[in-house]
Amino acid sequence: MSFKNFPMVSRVMFGRGSFNQLDEIITPKRQGREAPFIYYVDDVFKGNPWLTSRISLSYKDKIIYVPTKEEPKTSQIDQLVEDIILEFSERPSGIIGIGGGIVLDIAKAVSIMLTNEGEAKDYQGWDLVKNPAIYHVGIPTISGTGAEVSRTTILTGPDRKLGINSDYTPFDQVILDPELTKDVPKDQWFYTGMDCYVHCIESLNGSYLNSFSQSYGEKAFEICKEVFLGDNLSEEEAQDKLMMASWHGGMSIAYSQVGVAHAMSYGLGYLLGIKHGIGNCIVFDHLEEFYPDGVKLFKEMKAKHNIVLPKGICANLEEEELDIMINVALSLEPLWENAIGKNWKDIITPQKLKELYLKM
Amino acid sequence: MSFKNFPMVSRVMFGRGSFNQLDEIITPKRQGREAPFIYYVDDVFKGNPWLTSRISLSYKDKIIYVPTKEEPKTSQIDQLVEDIILEFSERPSGIIGIGGGIVLDIAKAVSIMLTNEGEAKDYQGWDLVKNPAIYHVGIPTISGTGAEVSRTTILTGPDRKLGINSDYTPFDQVILDPELTKDVPKDQWFYTGMDCYVHCIESLNGSYLNSFSQSYGEKAFEICKEVFLGDNLSEEEAQDKLMMASWHGGMSIAYSQVGVAHAMSYGLGYLLGIKHGIGNCIVFDHLEEFYPDGVKLFKEMKAKHNIVLPKGICANLEEEELDIMINVALSLEPLWENAIGKNWKDIITPQKLKELYLKM
Repeated sequence: MSFKNFPMVSRVMFGRGSFNQLDEIITPKRQGREAPFIYYVDDVFKGNPWLTSRISLSYKDKIIYVPTKEEPKTSQIDQLVEDIILEFSERPSGIIGIGGGIVLDIAKAVSIMLTNEGEAKDYQGWDLVKNPAIYHVGIPTISGTGAEVSRTTILTGPDRKLGINSDYTPFDQVILDPELTKDVPKDQWFYTGMDCYVHCIESLNGSYLNSFSQSYGEKAFEICKEVFLGDNLSEEEAQDKLMMASWHGGMSIAYSQVGVAHAMSYGLGYLLGIKHGIGNCIVFDHLEEFYPDGVKLFKEMKAKHNIVLPKGICANLEEEELDIMINVALSLEPLWENAIGKNWKDIITPQKLKELYLKM
Repeated sequence: MSFKNFPMVSRVMFGRGSFNQLDEIITPKRQGREAPFIYYVDDVFKGNPWLTSRISLSYKDKIIYVPTKEEPKTSQIDQLVEDIILEFSERPSGIIGIGGGIVLDIAKAVSIMLTNEGEAKDYQGWDLVKNPAIYHVGIPTISGTGAEVSRTTILTGPDRKLGINSDYTPFDQVILDPELTKDVPKDQWFYTGMDCYVHCIESLNGSYLNSFSQSYGEKAFEICKEVFLGDNLSEEEAQDKLMMASWHGGMSIAYSQVGVAHAMSYGLGYLLGIKHGIGNCIVFDHLEEFYPDGVKLFKEMKAKHNIVLPKGICANLEEEELDIMINVALSLEPLWENAIGKNWKDIITPQKLKELYLKM
């Protein structure tokens, strides 16, 4: 038996308004006038001075707005890295991601690929990264993905949707300012929050679970219930708490794994470009046989917040398209082993997944 | 408003038997043949090959057994640092603490004082440490203090009992192996576990609390109730869970503070040498007016485990001795402010503390 030596985020700041301290935090990390800080910012904040006026640009620092209609691709990371190499004479002092899971994952991946040769797709998998990343900072503006604390960055490559999982992936610094989540649209708030909820259900019901992951998962689960089913929280309290649920939910994966919903949602994402949060919801809604209590509670949350999920998204797919999705999902072996156990292949056949996808 | 940028333990490993991986973890950190690893080990493990045979000594590595009858003193740290400087031609590759709060705090303090000039007493306080510490590893063998995760190391100096609180204090690596706690005597298990319980009560009822600290504190509190009042856990589950409670309880202090029990327990420790765990229990037993629900539950736990606390420990003290204790306790201003609020001096007078101490 060998245990993982989990790398934690080195520094974390929490508080409403703590975003104002970003400059003070990163200034000592500046490597020189030619070594800029690169800010990747969710383009929803473009032209929003409430946020952008608090980013202080010096020397060659640059803001790059990131569209978040699609999830990050390995080719996109390679392009972003090339842009930096061509534009600047020195390596950046730091990469700062301000946004949701997409933007945070881009910041992580770019910071890794600036110090590691080759293409991003070469590093999809577990522990393939050789060199420490550039100093990188994560500032979530929506809660749920756990990207701010995880040791992965999920990318869609030419062959698969899979993370760069490594000890160099986690952020060196995270700023948790729940105020930044105040304008998230309700649907997106629900879908991304449910990513956290599903993390908890999959982690707590997985065969990999130990007391470390359990304690984080239970706390995140409890907060999700309070936020999505309770009636006693002010808006600000709910923002604060959901940001902590995301954090603890991410930590819960340290010694655990996600499960059925994530594996199948990756299939939807790979083939149809369905984003992870809503994809998780679409899949999870049909997983009673695997997570009966979790799905029951999910349906209550969905009803309480009047969330209507798309239906019949796989109805018109060709056989070959279904096969692609099924193969992406089946390739995520650790997820299935965690969810079902060592004998998962007896239960999770291509036919079984086809039936499930056709319900969605 | 300015928020703290909290330094987290860089690496954490959790699991029963994970202690076996110590050598594999630290080997890459060796600086050379003349730069030893120094192991501070609780002397309760002297002659216990179950533990010591798994410490692999190479080159000039050395085990130093630490008696734990008394809590660490600044003069003791200075002596340990001098011993290392005199014995070895190079700075150690790392300092490894294997034990409870006393041993962990010694490991932290020695690793700081090897790279910072002067005496340990000069650094008692907040953010006085200038240089990064030597690589240091914490391996708790009893659960509750939170020393494995905190940014302090509590020392008794010539003038006061106060921590070296700094960003360089936290361990670079922690190994959480609950199996190491299997032979802790019952009284000590209770006293140290109650240190965690009291952390939670003081943090959750303090004015400094935010959602970050609250989420950790609530989880630790819940586990304490399960371990000390529940009947459903196996011995191993209880060991695993209490180790996580200690961890989360320590994290809860990140944005919070301890309170009345800790302030008064430091007074007892300073004057009478009463150790922190039992000291907290003796004090907390009399704090109904500050923490009514917490004290009620504490008394239930005490009864369930047939714990009998010493009584009348202050009955025969001279006035001057009482004054010393009272002054040590009153000097811990952040603790009182957290517990009572900004106007704490109106309520917590020397006379009030004298009355409380005389009950104990």
